[in-house]
Amino acid sequence: MPIPAAPSQPSADGSISRSELALATRNHGMPLEAMRWDLTPPGLHYLLIHYDVPLIDPGRWRLEVGGAVRNPLTIDLDGLRERPRVGVTSTMECAGNGRALFSPRAISQPWLLEAVGTAAWTGAALSDLLEEAGLEDDAVELVFTGADRGFEGGIMQSYQRALTRTEAMGSDAVLAYEMNGSPLPPQHGYPVRLVVPGWYGMTNVKWLTAITGVTEPHRGYQSATAYRMRAHPDEPGTPVTRIVPRSLMVPPGVPDFFSRHRIVGTGPCLLEGRAWSGWEPIEAVEVSVDGGDAWHDADLDPAPIHPHTWRRFSFTWSPSTGDYELRSRCRDAAGHTQPDVAEWNVGGYGNNGVQRIMVTVVDTER
Amino acid sequence: MPIPAAPSQPSADGSISRSELALATRNHGMPLEAMRWDLTPPGLHYLLIHYDVPLIDPGRWRLEVGGAVRNPLTIDLDGLRERPRVGVTSTMECAGNGRALFSPRAISQPWLLEAVGTAAWTGAALSDLLEEAGLEDDAVELVFTGADRGFEGGIMQSYQRALTRTEAMGSDAVLAYEMNGSPLPPQHGYPVRLVVPGWYGMTNVKWLTAITGVTEPHRGYQSATAYRMRAHPDEPGTPVTRIVPRSLMVPPGVPDFFSRHRIVGTGPCLLEGRAWSGWEPIEAVEVSVDGGDAWHDADLDPAPIHPHTWRRFSFTWSPSTGDYELRSRCRDAAGHTQPDVAEWNVGGYGNNGVQRIMVTVVDTER
Repeated sequence: MPIPAAPSQPSADGSISRSELALATRNHGMPLEAMRWDLTPPGLHYLLIHYDVPLIDPGRWRLEVGGAVRNPLTIDLDGLRERPRVGVTSTMECAGNGRALFSPRAISQPWLLEAVGTAAWTGAALSDLLEEAGLEDDAVELVFTGADRGFEGGIMQSYQRALTRTEAMGSDAVLAYEMNGSPLPPQHGYPVRLVVPGWYGMTNVKWLTAITGVTEPHRGYQSATAYRMRAHPDEPGTPVTRIVPRSLMVPPGVPDFFSRHRIVGTGPCLLEGRAWSGWEPIEAVEVSVDGGDAWHDADLDPAPIHPHTWRRFSFTWSPSTGDYELRSRCRDAAGHTQPDVAEWNVGGYGNNGVQRIMVTVVDTER
Repeated sequence: MPIPAAPSQPSADGSISRSELALATRNHGMPLEAMRWDLTPPGLHYLLIHYDVPLIDPGRWRLEVGGAVRNPLTIDLDGLRERPRVGVTSTMECAGNGRALFSPRAISQPWLLEAVGTAAWTGAALSDLLEEAGLEDDAVELVFTGADRGFEGGIMQSYQRALTRTEAMGSDAVLAYEMNGSPLPPQHGYPVRLVVPGWYGMTNVKWLTAITGVTEPHRGYQSATAYRMRAHPDEPGTPVTRIVPRSLMVPPGVPDFFSRHRIVGTGPCLLEGRAWSGWEPIEAVEVSVDGGDAWHDADLDPAPIHPHTWRRFSFTWSPSTGDYELRSRCRDAAGHTQPDVAEWNVGGYGNNGVQRIMVTVVDTER
């Protein structure tokens, strides 16, 4: 099939190709000022769609739970809604967030910093459903299949990702049919998606149609080929799993339209942002305002109820006129810290290197 | 102020700069498969934010109607909601849609094709409000001011656009507080935006705070400098106003993840899409499937109630295996047609040249 192959190398000067731009105009990040809201307003949550948004008739939608289970289930939307409702508020981030800031960068969706969002998801507990289906003793993983189909890495495929039996039963994963109190929007997986708090977005399978118990680890493209941390292209690598800690600030002041450079007036300026980790709760955030080695403790809002929901931080900065580089970094309760520069990898995953915001402070008295 | 200036020339090879990418990851187009819905689902409508989304307390929001009016008004949100409700369903498009397909392209938001969406807007009629305020006889234009501020073209500004008195009174413009039956999302202008059906997005001022009658044509940046059609950078140009006709197809089949190249099976394939014009209703759409001069009439769904709402078209295509280039073009009742290639202009506005979809048809029997 003469499908144009993805170029394996970015251009030498770091500029973005037409195909990368086409992905960036379809998918979108969350404008960072949206971190002012605890829950990302509808339409501002980041979005990555591998193929197309499928058009699904909710009356014909079914979830098939099968494979290595004792009691295969076929569940319609009403059936799913009749089960006990559970809710989880969690921060979701694309594993490729920060990809275009690596040098050289992997050729894929060219995220900078904004591929994140926080939502309140409501649905049925995955563990309840798996209890009912009764996993066979030799079921080692669950494969989740979405209704979205496409061609990727030379393979025609439905989007599929797996979770180990332990992760699937032990996590507070939800088969969500509501986002922030409303039915899922089409682009976020209507009518039902998997939400696994703390895991990067690729595991949160949208347009879910099947959950299949398997007795061997899943070798599908999205588990075995994509979403692997590799130092070299020819190694198998390790799987991308939970979200590594990151903090981001709301850029202060007002922007220049084109460069997004910030202009701030003199006087006290509240720097605020959010920090999150898919491993453990955030314990500390520090802010640097001088581009150097001086870091200041930020104030932390009370910890959110769920350990994988972002936590607000703030810091009052009183600059005089001049040019500044603002940074923040965080640490979670497991001791994971956010590096100044993240380790490069082939796929451009997990780039949680610190954000740098360039600011010009001008005299507002004049 | 040492704000990095926007480069005036794109790179020689047409690739996209980091700053253009930053705009593309913030703002987003509508994935074209969303044209399957009459109303664009929340979050899929295109979005262009010049500066930042402002955080507005609805209890403190006021709309000031002043300037060359006999009865200046200060209206709060309850006051606006108590006025007669009017609704309009209209298709909105960014004036810069298609900008990155011009060669050379203007350096700004690098849209390809997707900067469009259709919504049902509800609010108070602009003409009613202006009747109440009583325009002075010498008021020639109304200036609409948003709460969003930023630095653009070397000028610190609040976003402002003007309409002539005739356009403001004669159009069915709405001061909208609902989008598709819900309060406006923050990014679409919460709590109130101006909606002027048929006009490019720049006129639909978001986060509206003031309407000011003026006795001389508005010379603000967004009226006199930006949003002008210019053949040369040093001429004043003519204002960008209403949306020129465009048709777009839902790309058929399934995509390759990276290239977005389409793969379609043999057998009948329904090509469908939408066409719109800000001037007059759409009267005809044609489809080409061979990249040559053969154009086929598409079937048109009944005309929508509002002349500036997109109209659905469809065409059944029965291809054999091979590679194809699909195109569509439309004509409105005023005789405006969609060109194969639009005329270049400095700002990259109004590029309604025909969409080209590359498709590989494969044998589904094997």
